Amino acid sequence: MPDFIAENPDFAAEVARRVRQQPFNEALGITLHRVAPGSAELRLPYRPDLTQNLGYFHGGAIATLADVAGGFAGWSLVAAGSGVVTVEFKLSIVAPGLGTGLRGLGGVVNRGRSLIVTRADVWGVGEDGTETLCATALQTLKIIRLPGH
Amino acid sequence: MPDFIAENPDFAAEVARRVRQQPFNEALGITLHRVAPGSAELRLPYRPDLTQNLGYFHGGAIATLADVAGGFAGWSLVAAGSGVVTVEFKLSIVAPGLGTGLRGLGGVVNRGRSLIVTRADVWGVGEDGTETLCATALQTLKIIRLPGH
Amino acid sequence: MPDFIAENPDFAAEVARRVRQQPFNEALGITLHRVAPGSAELRLPYRPDLTQNLGYFHGGAIATLADVAGGFAGWSLVAAGSGVVTVEFKLSIVAPGLGTGLRGLGGVVNRGRSLIVTRADVWGVGEDGTETLCATALQTLKIIRLPGH
Amino acid sequence: MPDFIAENPDFAAEVARRVRQQPFNEALGITLHRVAPGSAELRLPYRPDLTQNLGYFHGGAIATLADVAGGFAGWSLVAAGSGVVTVEFKLSIVAPGLGTGLRGLGGVVNRGRSLIVTRADVWGVGEDGTETLCATALQTLKIIRLPGH
Repeated sequence: MPDFIAENPDFAAEVARRVRQQPFNEALGITLHRVAPGSAELRLPYRPDLTQNLGYFHGGAIATLADVAGGFAGWSLVAAGSGVVTVEFKLSIVAPGLGTGLRGLGGVVNRGRSLIVTRADVWGVGEDGTETLCATALQTLKIIRLPGH
Repeated sequence: MPDFIAENPDFAAEVARRVRQQPFNEALGITLHRVAPGSAELRLPYRPDLTQNLGYFHGGAIATLADVAGGFAGWSLVAAGSGVVTVEFKLSIVAPGLGTGLRGLGGVVNRGRSLIVTRADVWGVGEDGTETLCATALQTLKIIRLPGH
Repeated sequence: MPDFIAENPDFAAEVARRVRQQPFNEALGITLHRVAPGSAELRLPYRPDLTQNLGYFHGGAIATLADVAGGFAGWSLVAAGSGVVTVEFKLSIVAPGLGTGLRGLGGVVNRGRSLIVTRADVWGVGEDGTETLCATALQTLKIIRLPGH
Repeated sequence: MPDFIAENPDFAAEVARRVRQQPFNEALGITLHRVAPGSAELRLPYRPDLTQNLGYFHGGAIATLADVAGGFAGWSLVAAGSGVVTVEFKLSIVAPGLGTGLRGLGGVVNRGRSLIVTRADVWGVGEDGTETLCATALQTLKIIRLPGH
C-alpha cells in the first residue's frame, strides 16, 4: 500500500466516532482496533446470530466487515466535514468464516479527487490466534460533504 | 431471465426452511416472500439498528439482502441434499436505502454444472409502496453437497 | 431498464463518432449497431486473432465489448462536450464465446450526477442466428468534461 | 501473497507456451516476463491501436492484461494436463493507462480444489522507468482438464 497523509489532523478520533455512530456496526458488534492514514482495522467477535446454515459467519456479516474496513480506511483521508459512501464493492469469499472472530483490514489503493479505491481483507481468527484468510474485497468510495457542513 | 426447471420438486419448502435456518437472516429480519425455479424474493423491514450514519440502511444490510436473494434464487435449482455457497459477489449501490423496508429480488442468469451465476436487485419501498432501485448485484455460487447427504 | 432522456439531441451521431474514434475498437473490429438514450448495441465479428487457446473468443475481447457497450450506453446520456470514463467493471463469463461474432448490449441502470451505473450482456451469435449468453457485466462510469470543452 | 508450490514441475515452460498459444495475446503484443509458482508478470508495449479517444491505453487492453496476468498466475499452480478459464473478474481503473507500456502482475490469493482466486495490478511505465498504478483486479478462475488430456 502507498503512504498517505491525512487531511484531517483529527482523523483518528473522527473515524472512531463515525464507526460507533453507525447503528448496524453496533448491532453486529464491529469495533475499531486501529486506524492510520489510509488504513483501518476492525474486528467482529463471533456470535451465534452472525452465522448461516453451517455455523460459519454469514456472507453478509463478512461483507459488512469488509465494506466497513475499506470505508473507514478511505474516511481517514478526507477533510473534516467530509465523509465517504460506498459506490460499489466486490467480495471474494475464499474460505469459510470460522473462529472466535473476524479481523478486517482495509487499505486505500488510490485516493482520487472525488473517488477512493480501497482493498479489504478479512481473516478468521482461531482460538490460538492463528488467522485464515476468509475474504478479499475491492471497493469504490465517493467523497461527500456531510450534512450540516 | 431464462426459464428454469427445479431438480428438487420440494424446492419451495426447502428454500423456505433454509432461509429460516440462517441465524443472521433471522437476526436482521429477512423473510422470504416468493420463490420460483431460478428466482427468490426476500424482504427486510426497516429497523433503526440496520442503518448507518445518515439514517439509511447500512451498506452491509443491503449487501446481505442481495447476497441472500441471489443465493436462494440459485438454491431453488439444485438437487435435494445439495445447497450453494457464495463464491463472490459485486454490489453497486445506486441510491440510499430508504423507506419502510427493502425488497430484494434474485434471479439466476446461468446454471452451470458446478457454478451458478445470479443477479439481484434491491429496492427501497416507500410508505405509499413506491419503489426506488437502491442496489444491483452479480453473484457467483458454488453448488455443494450438504453435510449428512 | 428505465426510460432515459438524452441531454444531447445529437447523442446518436456523437456516440457513433466516439466509437470510431477509439483505435482499439477499430483494431478489434467493434462496430455500433444501435444507440438509444441509455442503451447501445455493438458487435464484434469473429476473427482468429481474437481467440484464446481453445479457439473461443478471448476473455479480453469479451471484456472489451462489454466495457464498450456499457460505456456508450452511458455516453448517450451525457451533455454535449462531456464524455465518460470507466471507473470499474465486473464481468462474469457464463459460457465460451463462440460463433460468427459477439453481440454486446449495454443499458444504463442509474444515471447519477457524477456517476453512471450500467449493465452489459454479451452473446455469441451462431451461424443460424441463434444467440447464447456468454457474459454479463456491471460497470461504473464517471462523467468527465472532454478536453477542449 | 502466500507461498505456493507448483504441481507441475514444468510449469514455467507450460505457462510460456500457453501465453504464446493465445492468438489475442499475440495480436496485442502481450509477452511473459516472469513466472513463479502463483505469480506471473506480463507486459504490453504501447501501440497507437491499443488506445481510446484520449490517447491512453483502452480499458479493454488494460482489462486483457489484468485477466491474462491473473490467469497465468493461476495456471502456474495446476497439474500437467490441466488449465484454467476465467469465471469472472472485477477491474478498478485508478489512473489513465499511460507510458511506453503496461506492466501486469498477477498473484494467487487462494488455490482451492476447483477454483483459484487471484489479484492483478497493472502499472503504466514511463520513459524513465517510473511506474504509476493504473488498475487493480480480483479474478476467479476455474480449473479445467484440457482437451486431449
